[in-house]
Amino acid sequence: MFKDHYFLKRKTLPPCTLLLAPSNVAWLTGFDSAYLLIGKDEDYLMVPELEYERAKESVPWINVIKTRRRMLPIKEVKELCNNEPMMADLKYLDFNTAIRLITDLGAGDVSNMVKEERMKKDEYEVKMIKRALEMSEKAFLETWNELKEGMSELEAAGLLEYKMREMGATWFAFPTIVAFGKNSSKPHAVPGKNVFDKGKIALFDFGAKCGPYNSDITRTYVPDKRPYVEWMDAVLEAINAALKVLKPGVKGSEVDGVAREVIKEYGFGDAFVHGLGHGVGIDIHEPPYLAPSYDLPVPMGAVVTVEPGVYFPGEGGVRVEQLVYVNAKPLVLNSTNVVWW
Amino acid sequence: MFKDHYFLKRKTLPPCTLLLAPSNVAWLTGFDSAYLLIGKDEDYLMVPELEYERAKESVPWINVIKTRRRMLPIKEVKELCNNEPMMADLKYLDFNTAIRLITDLGAGDVSNMVKEERMKKDEYEVKMIKRALEMSEKAFLETWNELKEGMSELEAAGLLEYKMREMGATWFAFPTIVAFGKNSSKPHAVPGKNVFDKGKIALFDFGAKCGPYNSDITRTYVPDKRPYVEWMDAVLEAINAALKVLKPGVKGSEVDGVAREVIKEYGFGDAFVHGLGHGVGIDIHEPPYLAPSYDLPVPMGAVVTVEPGVYFPGEGGVRVEQLVYVNAKPLVLNSTNVVWW
Repeated sequence: MFKDHYFLKRKTLPPCTLLLAPSNVAWLTGFDSAYLLIGKDEDYLMVPELEYERAKESVPWINVIKTRRRMLPIKEVKELCNNEPMMADLKYLDFNTAIRLITDLGAGDVSNMVKEERMKKDEYEVKMIKRALEMSEKAFLETWNELKEGMSELEAAGLLEYKMREMGATWFAFPTIVAFGKNSSKPHAVPGKNVFDKGKIALFDFGAKCGPYNSDITRTYVPDKRPYVEWMDAVLEAINAALKVLKPGVKGSEVDGVAREVIKEYGFGDAFVHGLGHGVGIDIHEPPYLAPSYDLPVPMGAVVTVEPGVYFPGEGGVRVEQLVYVNAKPLVLNSTNVVWW
Repeated sequence: MFKDHYFLKRKTLPPCTLLLAPSNVAWLTGFDSAYLLIGKDEDYLMVPELEYERAKESVPWINVIKTRRRMLPIKEVKELCNNEPMMADLKYLDFNTAIRLITDLGAGDVSNMVKEERMKKDEYEVKMIKRALEMSEKAFLETWNELKEGMSELEAAGLLEYKMREMGATWFAFPTIVAFGKNSSKPHAVPGKNVFDKGKIALFDFGAKCGPYNSDITRTYVPDKRPYVEWMDAVLEAINAALKVLKPGVKGSEVDGVAREVIKEYGFGDAFVHGLGHGVGIDIHEPPYLAPSYDLPVPMGAVVTVEPGVYFPGEGGVRVEQLVYVNAKPLVLNSTNVVWW
């Protein structure tokens, strides 16, 4: 239940904390069109009038009060907290808003605390992410079965999205990537008119949302010929190497380094042009990161992608992405039966 | 051509301007995963390595240089601008980033200038928005023809999205709203398991993206009975009244007020729980606003929604949304042949 998650995580923040960033409010409540005031005793979800009915239904365990849209609830917060010192998620906010909270509420910053807690997924959160991943996987299996030569990237993306909706996706994690042939050499390719051809690469990177939680998965089909199969071998071996060192407390840069070393040994070092992975939760990209510059530890409870890729402009690219729950014994959340070449 | 739009709008900003907010960079270049430096002579698009190929292809008229991902290009900018005084889009940025630009680059704020210029759509921008709207309308016509009693909100949303993709949508403007029956009383309803029934309301609010440009349209089917037809009459009359006063220079609050007055006369004043409209462009909600608190003029060239609605919790709601280009003679961008009840 979202409610249990709420009370579990709420305790990690000090009383008189105001959360304004949509992703932080969604993290605690599941609802993102609101401000959340964690009071000394009572909590308040502050919503514009047009969100009132939906908020009351979605978050029945919190007091829902109406505030003016696009206005900071400075006066309301002062009253509800008896002018006590406030904390707010300043680093998540835009410059003007942060300055106003500091000036008018004397707000201190609770951003780092929120960031740390958001990384450590509780049981409910992992369940939601896994459910979102399952929808994505089932939709992909069906799409793959219906994919025909001559179908465009746009059609394939549309079909995949439609099937995610049929599985119950409340929305999508990010703009679906479907890249056929040479278009796959761009890590963030935009689907267009290229058509599916079994003699060429086909890359799919996509994700369903389940409530506010995201999933993220990449699968790449490669024709059975060189150099494509070598690219795929390098990527799969890099995943396996990374999974061996991905444990609570390991530095993000270390996991990235292990995968990067494998790809270098294959001679494709220059072709791995992005970090190995990122946290996934309320945001599709969130800490911790598995990347050369991220020297912080990956905390127990993080959910991260492991997604090495190699890209050759003018030729094509291969990326495979697994989603991993970093528990005492790290757990790959993907089903084993999802299409895998 | 995006290039012509670029050089037209680029001139409105001072030299040595750094744009970091994705929507501002996308506004000028069509590309959002980059920073843009408007130099004295040359301009530079700064991208992480993984975006390099895509950026070179998308924005061939600007120098594309690689920078480190998730790092501010302070050193590069200082060098490229010979340590001259800089401007940046500070108000669009998060607190930390803005503070660093002020501290390390002595950056002044160009946000208001950008905001003003983004409101005034040029010919190319209006064409892109209209194209996005046409995709949405065609997709809706087909979806409406295929909609059957018993089909769920999620299925209908998926079908509509699929068809927008078939029409060439590069993505969606926002999470599609499909609300059947009582669910339509929530202005931002999330599609779920409610099924279509010709005896009940069916509300659709959705939009395709064409490149970086958004469209926004709402259509509501009401069964031919009271009070639904009265709700619809009120909403349609409010649109017509608003369109009569929506001209360059009119205050946003005035247009909202005219529509609100009509709905009050019908006795539904308390049920119109949101502003009348908002600007649409690179962002799906952007200035100017047609709302009670927006006392600024609507500039010539703005593209705004006109979308009155009435909502009755537990019963249902009606909203209809047109997209209007505020030219010397304001122009409704919607086709006349799209389903209209």
